[in-house]
Amino acid sequence: MDNFTYFNPTKVHFGKGQIATLKEEISPNSRVLLTYGGGSIKTNGVYEQVLDALKECAVFEFGGIEPNPHYETLIKAVAVAKQEQIDVILAVGGGSVIDGSKFIAAAACYEGDSWDIITIGGGCVQRALPLGCVLTLPATGSEMNRNSVVTRAATQDKLSFGSDLVRPVFSILDPQTTYTLPARQIANGAVDSFVHIMEQYMTYPVNAKVSDRFAEGLLLTLLEDGPAALATPDDYDVRANLMWTATMALNGTLKNGVPTDWSTHAIGHELTALYGLDHAQTLAIVMPALWRYKKEQKKGKLLQYAHRVLNITEGTEEQQIELAIQKTEDFFSQMGNPTRLSDYNLTEKDIPAVQEKLTEHGLLAIGEHKDITPHDAAEILRLAL
Amino acid sequence: MDNFTYFNPTKVHFGKGQIATLKEEISPNSRVLLTYGGGSIKTNGVYEQVLDALKECAVFEFGGIEPNPHYETLIKAVAVAKQEQIDVILAVGGGSVIDGSKFIAAAACYEGDSWDIITIGGGCVQRALPLGCVLTLPATGSEMNRNSVVTRAATQDKLSFGSDLVRPVFSILDPQTTYTLPARQIANGAVDSFVHIMEQYMTYPVNAKVSDRFAEGLLLTLLEDGPAALATPDDYDVRANLMWTATMALNGTLKNGVPTDWSTHAIGHELTALYGLDHAQTLAIVMPALWRYKKEQKKGKLLQYAHRVLNITEGTEEQQIELAIQKTEDFFSQMGNPTRLSDYNLTEKDIPAVQEKLTEHGLLAIGEHKDITPHDAAEILRLAL
Repeated sequence: MDNFTYFNPTKVHFGKGQIATLKEEISPNSRVLLTYGGGSIKTNGVYEQVLDALKECAVFEFGGIEPNPHYETLIKAVAVAKQEQIDVILAVGGGSVIDGSKFIAAAACYEGDSWDIITIGGGCVQRALPLGCVLTLPATGSEMNRNSVVTRAATQDKLSFGSDLVRPVFSILDPQTTYTLPARQIANGAVDSFVHIMEQYMTYPVNAKVSDRFAEGLLLTLLEDGPAALATPDDYDVRANLMWTATMALNGTLKNGVPTDWSTHAIGHELTALYGLDHAQTLAIVMPALWRYKKEQKKGKLLQYAHRVLNITEGTEEQQIELAIQKTEDFFSQMGNPTRLSDYNLTEKDIPAVQEKLTEHGLLAIGEHKDITPHDAAEILRLAL
Repeated sequence: MDNFTYFNPTKVHFGKGQIATLKEEISPNSRVLLTYGGGSIKTNGVYEQVLDALKECAVFEFGGIEPNPHYETLIKAVAVAKQEQIDVILAVGGGSVIDGSKFIAAAACYEGDSWDIITIGGGCVQRALPLGCVLTLPATGSEMNRNSVVTRAATQDKLSFGSDLVRPVFSILDPQTTYTLPARQIANGAVDSFVHIMEQYMTYPVNAKVSDRFAEGLLLTLLEDGPAALATPDDYDVRANLMWTATMALNGTLKNGVPTDWSTHAIGHELTALYGLDHAQTLAIVMPALWRYKKEQKKGKLLQYAHRVLNITEGTEEQQIELAIQKTEDFFSQMGNPTRLSDYNLTEKDIPAVQEKLTEHGLLAIGEHKDITPHDAAEILRLAL
């Protein structure tokens, strides 16, 4: 078991009707910047609940934060935050709105060029506005961590930063807010969560039993309740389990004492930036191919996954591993994310640009062993043609 | 799945050599009250590591905090904290030292009679000194929660309080510090952790898959690594898994979305206060008997435990439940805590006093259904004669 430091001060209010707790979390007379995305919150009742709880505050709105939030959009919100002397940012939406709002929170207090926050990283963040969240789409875990991914549309750069100063002070998770989500978003969220868990699990064994078993418990829950959420969209417990699983998947708990991978995400981010694929689609393409490419190094954990999560006990180790990968691909496909580049009309000729972008971004040696080069990434994608 | 609020801002530094992080956590020139128990930290190397990390601080010592820390002892430490104008309390030891230090932290800032903190409860705590911990005995989870249990020796009252203000700001967990613990303390710690998990698990099913599976993962780890820790006391990974399991067992994670019981603890506390039994001994006596007494109400979870944790699949439901209870008793006995009152020279005639103390303490209806009366508690103890 490896050494670790764990710290997560975000307060979570989870369950039916919890949006009303905004009244306790945000002081009366605060100047609140309410950030959101495409406007679904105005049709599903969330917006009314939020405004009702903030009746005694001055609320300013900034909508239109897109999936894979654009730097170009966010700097407009930064200008509003500065001009209106905002006290607190309230992000209402999914991971993109929250990630974008983390950038807004930091950039609103930053003196230099705010793109520094992305390129230099969170270390240059000295102050940030307090951030609260009302999560409406379980997927990224951003509601309970220090990370943010921002895309500069002009240059197709999708890059991340992290800082304890942009951790949400509180996050409100009411599973009922997810009932009206399009099936595709729920499905993508389940795949995203699944891969978050795997990035912290599918490496090599270090006898960290707590993190391993927690990861396995969350994987089992996604395998059960991901499909169930598509079949019965208004089953409260299914949505609740999915929502809490997505948060626990990336709030720091699972990485305690274990090595982490994250190469699927690194390669996937380039596919999204270059070709506009959904984040979850890129993960579904990359991860199974990466497992096949790194089968020997990941053997111990692939077998543990096969046995403990998928209950695979028959056949040779080689067969068990291949079956585990196939069953994972089946799950992704069942959740609407097929696992081949060709499923998204991409071919061999689209691969070199990914290799180049990884090189450009300095991602020269990724994965738990720091041995996946941009060339290896291209080879991995060739296994997913 | 039930609604919940989760909040846990304690920073954890876990692993080999982490005591050195005290340098980062406590500012130079701070006035530190170092609290500890019987003095084992002076023979196992922990004391030297702590002092070495605090070279630039003014360190005051208060040792001799006993198991089930006595109010009578703690108020002496409160006097030292006030007199020496202490900035921060550093508890070095197990759950009793940490629980006691939480009381000291609150009482040092309290104007009235400090016994109020116990009788009125944490609600009367308006301020507390910051508390840090170096944990040397995995058991109570106090290093990462808001709770404290204090005993007033004069009146045999063992009572608890809780406040967010006494949560440790940081806790340092180095599994190597546990190598020299007496086997009995490691064994008791494993039993205590096991029962902490069960108090949050063995109630009735509410389809909270995350908390259920996390609990099951921790129970499995204790069943494996509790005995292993006794067999091979210097196996780092075994001690690490035990230590992290004990913390996760009672840091708020497992109670998210589920009902909780805590009647075993309530009844057990009275046995300790009246007859001086170890905390873990009382739990080992009460819990199996309580499960038999409440077999119908707890049926769903007893079967889930039998299947998922103990892998019991044969026999009728009744037989599976009885076997699960027996296997739990076997585990307690294997960990040096037999499960009958007679194992501790207690008899039928010692039971009425427990019933009276529960009544005196106002514990008139406990358990997840609030239906265990002091009379029921006596009946439960009669099943453990």
